[in-house]
Amino acid sequence: MSFNMKSIFLLFQYRVPAMPSIRYNSNSAVKLIYSEYGDPLKVLNRVPYEVPTPQANEVVVKMLAAPVNPADINTIQGKYPSRPKLPAVPGNEGVGQVIYVGDEVKDVSEGDHVVPLTTNLGTWRSHLVLHKNNVFKIPKKLGLIEAATLTVNPCTAYRMLRDFTLLKPGDTVIQNGANSACGQNVIQICHSWGIKTVNVIRDRPNVEELKKFLTNLGGTHILTEEELRQTDIFSSGKLGKPKLALNCVGGKNALDCMRQLDNGGIIVTYGGMSREPVTVPTSALIFKDLQVRGFWMTRWVKENVDSVERFEMFSELISLMMHDELRGPVHKLVSFDNYKEAVENALNLTGMTGKKYIFLFD
Amino acid sequence: MSFNMKSIFLLFQYRVPAMPSIRYNSNSAVKLIYSEYGDPLKVLNRVPYEVPTPQANEVVVKMLAAPVNPADINTIQGKYPSRPKLPAVPGNEGVGQVIYVGDEVKDVSEGDHVVPLTTNLGTWRSHLVLHKNNVFKIPKKLGLIEAATLTVNPCTAYRMLRDFTLLKPGDTVIQNGANSACGQNVIQICHSWGIKTVNVIRDRPNVEELKKFLTNLGGTHILTEEELRQTDIFSSGKLGKPKLALNCVGGKNALDCMRQLDNGGIIVTYGGMSREPVTVPTSALIFKDLQVRGFWMTRWVKENVDSVERFEMFSELISLMMHDELRGPVHKLVSFDNYKEAVENALNLTGMTGKKYIFLFD
Repeated sequence: MSFNMKSIFLLFQYRVPAMPSIRYNSNSAVKLIYSEYGDPLKVLNRVPYEVPTPQANEVVVKMLAAPVNPADINTIQGKYPSRPKLPAVPGNEGVGQVIYVGDEVKDVSEGDHVVPLTTNLGTWRSHLVLHKNNVFKIPKKLGLIEAATLTVNPCTAYRMLRDFTLLKPGDTVIQNGANSACGQNVIQICHSWGIKTVNVIRDRPNVEELKKFLTNLGGTHILTEEELRQTDIFSSGKLGKPKLALNCVGGKNALDCMRQLDNGGIIVTYGGMSREPVTVPTSALIFKDLQVRGFWMTRWVKENVDSVERFEMFSELISLMMHDELRGPVHKLVSFDNYKEAVENALNLTGMTGKKYIFLFD
Repeated sequence: MSFNMKSIFLLFQYRVPAMPSIRYNSNSAVKLIYSEYGDPLKVLNRVPYEVPTPQANEVVVKMLAAPVNPADINTIQGKYPSRPKLPAVPGNEGVGQVIYVGDEVKDVSEGDHVVPLTTNLGTWRSHLVLHKNNVFKIPKKLGLIEAATLTVNPCTAYRMLRDFTLLKPGDTVIQNGANSACGQNVIQICHSWGIKTVNVIRDRPNVEELKKFLTNLGGTHILTEEELRQTDIFSSGKLGKPKLALNCVGGKNALDCMRQLDNGGIIVTYGGMSREPVTVPTSALIFKDLQVRGFWMTRWVKENVDSVERFEMFSELISLMMHDELRGPVHKLVSFDNYKEAVENALNLTGMTGKKYIFLFD
C-alpha cells in the first residue's frame, strides 16, 4: 500500500501542487474538544472533523489507544500550569498506527506503530497528522498499554531515578504513593537495576492484597504510612539509608520519608496528593545536607525533545517492557465512544491502585 | 628573634631530642574550658595552663582576638551537631601572632599574623600550638575584626553565592536576616561583584537607621518582612527575579522570599532564627523547579580543608577587605578576662544587628 500510494503521488507531482489524495476515510475522524475550561463532563464535546491534508514531511496516524492521565483532567479544568489555547483537543500521549507517510519521511512506514514525541498534541482523537520529527517508531509487539503510556509515567520514573543522584546496585530508594502509575514503574525499574525500594502506601481495607501486588512487581519492602513511622528496617542495618526519596503525596508523609534519608540525600517531589506542602526541618537542610527538588516531565521533554538521553531512555524502557520486566499499570480499557465514563472517574482515587483508563479507538 | 631561636635550636639538635626551649612565658597562658555541656556561665572555667612543647612541624601562636559566634554557645550548651570530646576549649576562629616556629616550618615566620585553618581547635585560649598545615598567614594590615572573623561568616556568604548557581553581574539575590553577620557579608560581596541584593529585615523601632546602615554597605533594596509581601520591585520590572535566596530565618518569611524566586531558583538555608521549618509548596517544586538546599560551613571546611577553592576564596575576601570593600560587622571588643559578659549576651539578638563579641587577649 505504501508503494502504491507513493507511486501514484510521484506520477502526479510534476503536474499538481503537493496535495496528495489520501486513501483513508477521514469522514470517520472524531475528536474530543473543549472551548472553555471546566468540568470535563460539561465542557468536552465529541465531534467529527476533517483530517488536515498532510504535508510531504508529515505522517497520518490512526490512533489505537490513548490514556486518561490526571494531568489531562486538570488541564481541561484549567487547573494545570500548561494552559493550551482554546478550543483544544485533550490528551498528552497514546499509540497509533501510521496510515499515510509523506514523501519526505524516511524513518517510518505505513503500518508502523508510533508514539507522539511532543506533549499537548491532543491525542484524544481518532487521527493525528504529525511532523516526521514528532513520531517515534516502537515495536509492534509492545503491549498496547505499555505503548500508549510510554512517554509519561515510565519516563518520569526513569528520569527521577537517573537525574538527581547516582544510584548503584544495592542502594535504597524510598517512595510514597508507591501504588501510583509512576510508583509501579519505579518499583520495576529499580528491581531491574538491582536497587532496593521501600514503598509507602496508605492503609486501606485490602492492604495485604496491595502489598502482595507491589511485592510481585519487585518492591523490596512495602509499608503503610503508619508502619513507616515505626519501622526498624533502617536502624537494624538490614537496609542502607535511602539516597533518594520520591514524593507524590507531600505533607506529613513526605516528612516521614525525608527523615529516613541518608546525609546528602535528595527528595524529589512529582505530585501532591495530600494537597499539603513539603515541610523541611532547618536542621535537615544545614546539618544533613538534604536537597529538596521537584520534577515535571513536561519541562524535561521541552528541554530534551531531541536529546540522545531521551532516545536512550526509550530504548531501555522498551527493552525492559519487551522482556516483561516493566509492565504498565492495570488500566480499564474504554471505547472512545464511552469517554464520559473515563473522564468522570479518572480523578477518583478509590480502588487498589486508583482507576486508570485508556481509550480504545475503533 | 627568629634567627636567634633557630640558631640555638640547631646548635643543640644533635645532642638532645626535639624539645626546644621556648622563649615565651607559658606561665601566663590561660584558657576557657568546660567539662560538661550546659549554661556557658556555669560550665565554663578560666584556667591557667602549660602550653605544650611544640614539635618541629608546629608553631606557637599567641592569640590576639577570637570571636564569640552563636554556634560556639550552642556547642557549649550541647545543642550543636558538632559535639567535641570533653573537657574542651571552645572557639572556632580567631587571629593570632606567631611567637615560635618549629624547624620544619617554612611558610610562616615569627611575628606573622595567622588564622587557624581547621575548626574546633579551641581558640578561646591565649596560646595555640598548631601544625604548620593548620595556619594561614594573613596580612598584618588586615583589620583585627576582619582577621578574627575571616573563616566563618565571610566564607559562608562567599560559598553560598558561588556554589549553588552561577550569578552574573546584574543578577538579583534575595536574603532574609540581612542584618546578620553573614547577611552583611552577602551585601558587600554582592555589591563588589555587581549583583543586586534584596535584603529583608524584621521591623523594629530603629528600622530606618538599620535600612540606612545596610544601604551604606551596598544593599540595593532593604525591605521589612511586611514590605516584602507588598512590594512591586519584582513585578514592575525594576529588578530581575532572584536566582538565589539565602535564608537564616525559616517559616513564613522563608516562604515569602521563595515566592519571589525566578523559575529554577534556589533557596539556601543556613540558619533558622524563627525556629520554624521551611515550607515549600508542591507546585513550586514541580512547576517552578525550585531547589531547596542547605549550607553548613563546618562541613564545607571538612571536605575542602586544603582545596584550591579555599585559598582562592581567602585571597579574594582578604583583597576585598584590604580595599575596604568588605568590613566585618560591628563587634563589641571584650577583654578575655571579662569573658562572662560576652557569653552571657552572645545569644541576645536585640540591638540593631545583634550583639557580636570579640575577645581581646593581652
